[in-house]
Amino acid sequence: MGSLNDIGVAAGINILSAVGFLLVFAVVRIQPINDRVYFPKWYLKGTRSSPRHIGNVLSKFVNADVSTYLRFLNWMPAALKMPEPELIEHAGLDSAVYVRIYLLGLKIFVPITVLAFAVLVPVNWTSATLGDDEEGLSYDQIDKLSISNLGPGSKRFWVHIGMAYVFTFWTFYVLYHEYKVITTMRLHFLANQNRRPDQFTVLVRNIPVDPDETVGEHVEHFFAVNHREHYLSHQVAYNANALASLVKKKKGLQNWLVYYENQHAKNPEKELTIKTGLWGLWGEKVDALQHYKTTIEELCKQEDEGRQKVISDPKAIMPAAFVSFNSQWGAAVCAQTQQTSNPTVWLTEWAPEPRDVYWPNLAIPFVELSIRRLIMAVALFFLTFFFMVPIALVQSVANLDDIERVLPFLKPIIERNGPRSVIQGFLPGIALKIFLIFLPTILMAMSKIEGHVSLSGLERKTASKYFLFIFVNVFLGSVVAGTAFQQLNSFIHQSTNKIPETIGESIPMKATFFITYIMVDGWAGIAAEVLRLKPLIMFHIKNTFLVRTEQDREQAMDPGSLEFGSTEPRIQLYFLLGLVYAVVTPIILPFIIVFFGLAYLVFRHQIINVYNQQYESGAQFWPDVHGRIVTALVISQILLIGLLSTQEADQSTVALLPLPVLAIWFHYVCKGRFEPAYIKFPLQEAMVKDTLQRANDPMLNLREYLKDAYVHPVFRSGDIYELLAMDEEENPHLVATKRRSRMTTPVDSKFSSSSGTNEGEFSRPRPS
Amino acid sequence: MGSLNDIGVAAGINILSAVGFLLVFAVVRIQPINDRVYFPKWYLKGTRSSPRHIGNVLSKFVNADVSTYLRFLNWMPAALKMPEPELIEHAGLDSAVYVRIYLLGLKIFVPITVLAFAVLVPVNWTSATLGDDEEGLSYDQIDKLSISNLGPGSKRFWVHIGMAYVFTFWTFYVLYHEYKVITTMRLHFLANQNRRPDQFTVLVRNIPVDPDETVGEHVEHFFAVNHREHYLSHQVAYNANALASLVKKKKGLQNWLVYYENQHAKNPEKELTIKTGLWGLWGEKVDALQHYKTTIEELCKQEDEGRQKVISDPKAIMPAAFVSFNSQWGAAVCAQTQQTSNPTVWLTEWAPEPRDVYWPNLAIPFVELSIRRLIMAVALFFLTFFFMVPIALVQSVANLDDIERVLPFLKPIIERNGPRSVIQGFLPGIALKIFLIFLPTILMAMSKIEGHVSLSGLERKTASKYFLFIFVNVFLGSVVAGTAFQQLNSFIHQSTNKIPETIGESIPMKATFFITYIMVDGWAGIAAEVLRLKPLIMFHIKNTFLVRTEQDREQAMDPGSLEFGSTEPRIQLYFLLGLVYAVVTPIILPFIIVFFGLAYLVFRHQIINVYNQQYESGAQFWPDVHGRIVTALVISQILLIGLLSTQEADQSTVALLPLPVLAIWFHYVCKGRFEPAYIKFPLQEAMVKDTLQRANDPMLNLREYLKDAYVHPVFRSGDIYELLAMDEEENPHLVATKRRSRMTTPVDSKFSSSSGTNEGEFSRPRPS
Repeated sequence: MGSLNDIGVAAGINILSAVGFLLVFAVVRIQPINDRVYFPKWYLKGTRSSPRHIGNVLSKFVNADVSTYLRFLNWMPAALKMPEPELIEHAGLDSAVYVRIYLLGLKIFVPITVLAFAVLVPVNWTSATLGDDEEGLSYDQIDKLSISNLGPGSKRFWVHIGMAYVFTFWTFYVLYHEYKVITTMRLHFLANQNRRPDQFTVLVRNIPVDPDETVGEHVEHFFAVNHREHYLSHQVAYNANALASLVKKKKGLQNWLVYYENQHAKNPEKELTIKTGLWGLWGEKVDALQHYKTTIEELCKQEDEGRQKVISDPKAIMPAAFVSFNSQWGAAVCAQTQQTSNPTVWLTEWAPEPRDVYWPNLAIPFVELSIRRLIMAVALFFLTFFFMVPIALVQSVANLDDIERVLPFLKPIIERNGPRSVIQGFLPGIALKIFLIFLPTILMAMSKIEGHVSLSGLERKTASKYFLFIFVNVFLGSVVAGTAFQQLNSFIHQSTNKIPETIGESIPMKATFFITYIMVDGWAGIAAEVLRLKPLIMFHIKNTFLVRTEQDREQAMDPGSLEFGSTEPRIQLYFLLGLVYAVVTPIILPFIIVFFGLAYLVFRHQIINVYNQQYESGAQFWPDVHGRIVTALVISQILLIGLLSTQEADQSTVALLPLPVLAIWFHYVCKGRFEPAYIKFPLQEAMVKDTLQRANDPMLNLREYLKDAYVHPVFRSGDIYELLAMDEEENPHLVATKRRSRMTTPVDSKFSSSSGTNEGEFSRPRPS
Repeated sequence: MGSLNDIGVAAGINILSAVGFLLVFAVVRIQPINDRVYFPKWYLKGTRSSPRHIGNVLSKFVNADVSTYLRFLNWMPAALKMPEPELIEHAGLDSAVYVRIYLLGLKIFVPITVLAFAVLVPVNWTSATLGDDEEGLSYDQIDKLSISNLGPGSKRFWVHIGMAYVFTFWTFYVLYHEYKVITTMRLHFLANQNRRPDQFTVLVRNIPVDPDETVGEHVEHFFAVNHREHYLSHQVAYNANALASLVKKKKGLQNWLVYYENQHAKNPEKELTIKTGLWGLWGEKVDALQHYKTTIEELCKQEDEGRQKVISDPKAIMPAAFVSFNSQWGAAVCAQTQQTSNPTVWLTEWAPEPRDVYWPNLAIPFVELSIRRLIMAVALFFLTFFFMVPIALVQSVANLDDIERVLPFLKPIIERNGPRSVIQGFLPGIALKIFLIFLPTILMAMSKIEGHVSLSGLERKTASKYFLFIFVNVFLGSVVAGTAFQQLNSFIHQSTNKIPETIGESIPMKATFFITYIMVDGWAGIAAEVLRLKPLIMFHIKNTFLVRTEQDREQAMDPGSLEFGSTEPRIQLYFLLGLVYAVVTPIILPFIIVFFGLAYLVFRHQIINVYNQQYESGAQFWPDVHGRIVTALVISQILLIGLLSTQEADQSTVALLPLPVLAIWFHYVCKGRFEPAYIKFPLQEAMVKDTLQRANDPMLNLREYLKDAYVHPVFRSGDIYELLAMDEEENPHLVATKRRSRMTTPVDSKFSSSSGTNEGEFSRPRPS
């Protein structure tokens, strides 16, 4: 336990580093040379095509305008200025709702903090049990502010119990209200969207094999019969992973071709040759331009053959299809109903956005899916509780004496002092650090094995797994010292009511540790986030050594995206800490509020200027966010019960028992009340949109509009820029190019809405 | 622990009593006078209208035909003879599937018993650890056959572990196969049903209030817009509980009228007078016929007024309606989809059969529903764990010394020996017995408060609650002595891994007790079931004193029905015992097999000859049955782990850990694979049925057919026999009378199918 002094020092260091990061950011971001690192979103949106600068060559790289330095904190109000509807329009609903998680943190914890400091801190401080203790146990001021100061059997615990109820009901209120607002936003967002292919399309999986028909014919016949008034068309899913690598290779060569063409244009005299061998280092010398042209032509042919093969090869056809309907009503009906008496075939669900589809998982059969999920559930259990085992193995391998014994010839190197201390000092830590860095990737891989079909679904499942890991290994691991496995073992051998007691008892003692954690991970971490150090360095390295074409520069820009799967569970840790310590040690709350405030500011800035989401799920993750906060609430209540039951306050423990029951009930009420809005699509809304769209676009040829929406990405490659240029004039819908697929939905939809005047006939439901 | 001898004696007694019951039954059932008690089903079906008898008056009451006595065991093969399809036709799918639960017990346990006796019993017997024990602990032969005979740390435990796996996989196989068969039966049953109103109808609840429209108009407008191609008509639900009592009163008076008319016809001279006062004992003397006629007329008027009032009074209209569609496809779509963006209003679900509707629960708002469920969940917890508290109170009140102190004037009575011993000896027991008799009623009342809208749903929920109660209070209560609350308390204060150990350890010791329990509750209980002692006595009492008309006799008959809510959980106890003891003390298995065999025989006989189900849910309860057997399996595995971990066999404990994981996974696989068939109605099936019906009955006036199907029962009363006679000629569909509503579906449907030639126009979907 640290004293207030220790915390003051830690706070000083972290505040300094946070301010340092922010100052560096303020200076670095206004340099034109970094423009693409800090404002990539505007480039992608097409609003900005080159850095703002005035006049001379120098100003292309360094900002010489002194006045901008004076306004170096401008980005903060600027980040807050954009109103929410515009933010949704600009960055998508997912991002706008994501930053509202931080706002939710403020909404929950600011009033709780005020109340806790007004009521609990005085109650704790004036108890002064710990002050009288002179037996050598060192208690410090922080503990005098916490519940530990009351001493066993104190009547004052009733104040804490009362506050636990107040905090719980306040959290209920804020959570309920927020769920309602987000649901309204989602429904409003969906209702205001312009026509999008996924509104008319249903993903059908596990199509049964028919000996007489191809998958395509089978789908057509099935839906033409069972949805005869609504079926429009379908797109069978192909297994085109081999083709995808071919396309990727061709793209690389095309870059080189453009590069040499540029070189040739600058200096037409110089002969451009390359070597055909490995990495162009040896082999036959040939003319570069000629070489690339022929190679690309060859690849084009191969690609065409590959495409033909995929389309014609029955093995490449997956038993999954995207089925489109002539009205949103028809699609909504098909997505929500069961098709046949065997519920493991003809499984229908709303199609994800085309760019949200995770193609490799479309073809997993039902039984395999359940086996995969079983295996992954077991694997997650072992990963969470036994992840220290392989790391301990690595660390024991790093035991140099063993290495000497096994590999005696390394002895002379190892015996030296330098390497010895490096290996023994850093390797164990590095092994753990590497594991933690790769953890989100491992969890994402596990989610992929589980077989979810959309990227958004994968992110959500990864977040759930990561939260479990953080809860067990960061929270419990810090509160109860020891690895998760040791905890598990001791918990199994402990009395059931002793577990919350053991954890609850050590909760107040860990307050200082978590305050430090919040400052390091929360404050300095968030300040480092806005600086984007890694993308900054990577961009300049790439820009200097690799960038050859404008396209390369765009790729080097790498705006990144909000990685929901790995960032959201970390926010949840702060909710958990806040709720657990609100009653116990309220001094922790201001630190959490600073975190939420700073993070809200920074992430609002980032989603406006930097991040570019890969997909738009319409805030589908909110039920998960809500559920985890309720989980944190229940955990905090159980731990409080455990803590109080060690304080000879049995009656008060009983008085707290209704809280977790109420919280679980609250969860089910919210689930019933709001969750359907995230899973189902109401028929009334669908009917309204159908009616409106028929009135607005009576002549729309929907079949043509949907024709290629759900084609596997490799089938739409080709030279994307040519296609884009060509298509934007004629038919912006058919080919979704890389450039377009990077954009967020509202912009995407603008394209769509501009095409309302296309010719063709809107195919109305045929009367049966 | 009893010895084999004790069990032999108990078995003898119980076998004797069971055989006694069966013999009495065999004799009693062939007496014509009891015909309506033992064959009411045939009377209701109209196959039999008076007992079979030959000639003279005596034979009307006593069977004098000696040959029938010789064939007194005939009913057993007769019960088995009826093939299953005919059984479904005769007794309904619910009943046919219900007896398959017993058959499932045989399928699971016969092979397990054979294997256990071939492998486990020799292994246990030859271990002989207990035989060597001469320290005075008395072990008997049963324990020598059980796992206790192995002694700690024996290698032979691996045999038991292997058998645990074999038994588990066998149970999986049988359960999966049975689920598949039942699902097929259900789908086949639904597909083969003739046209029924509930196939076209959806129950809509929580209709929002509209200030400008009545509920009816609101429903009409909403569905006409959002299901415009499918909506046909609707029937608003009325709150007519007050009217129902009026109708009941009138019915009673009508019976009297018929009675006096009969009397008058027999003896026209005699003047029939009654007194108008209480129970006809005093008051003014009036002519009976005249009096009843006028009273009934008056009531008819009141009833008409009441009906008018209910229909016109806005307060009597509930925010719920039965909405009918012009095709099963349309109804299937509406039942499975969400209607509006607010998921707490316009809630749709398949309408239960008209006779399955539980009217009072139709109008509960969404929020109230969640509050009710919370309260009932808490109440169920207290009922299960603290039910002994009020009973202990009653018992302490029965403490005579206390009574003497409080009410000293009772002293002379109490001091006598007779009453004293009766009260002190029986009252405590009687209090518990009365509670247990009323328990299913209490649980049913709780389910009703929870707000389920169909009788079948109420029964299913009651069964779940009852199973919990039986598991905690009968199973755990017997294994670990003490009340449930004491157990709960000791479990909370026990180490988590100690709980299965404590229970597991005492499992082998309780084998003898459960064997006795099976014989008393299972063998003799089932034999008593077939005798129908209570209905037999009640029928003869009513027949002698109360029956005045033929209708009265029919009512006195009271066939009863399979009470799923209270009988199914008791069967589940046998599954639990069998699975728990299969590995531990296999000697218990033959007793369970005898129970399942005997019960199968008896209940097959009962559903053929006696029981008359109130509703037909199409085996919708099977997912619950399946789920509870899997639960029993998981419990048995955990207890086996607990038992083995006390036997110094740690490795073997680990070897068993995958079993519960597999069982839970198996549950989810089955749930995903089969459960939708019990909740949703596949569109393909609906489309096929629609197409068939349109081809068969192109001229059917569906609107007319559905017009009165979902009218509240009181609106269809009137003189039911008159209506029946009248309607059977003209329009058998409009008024579902009591007589018809008692019949099982297949017969019900015969009426419906015969009406295919009705005139009118089948209203096809209007093209939009």
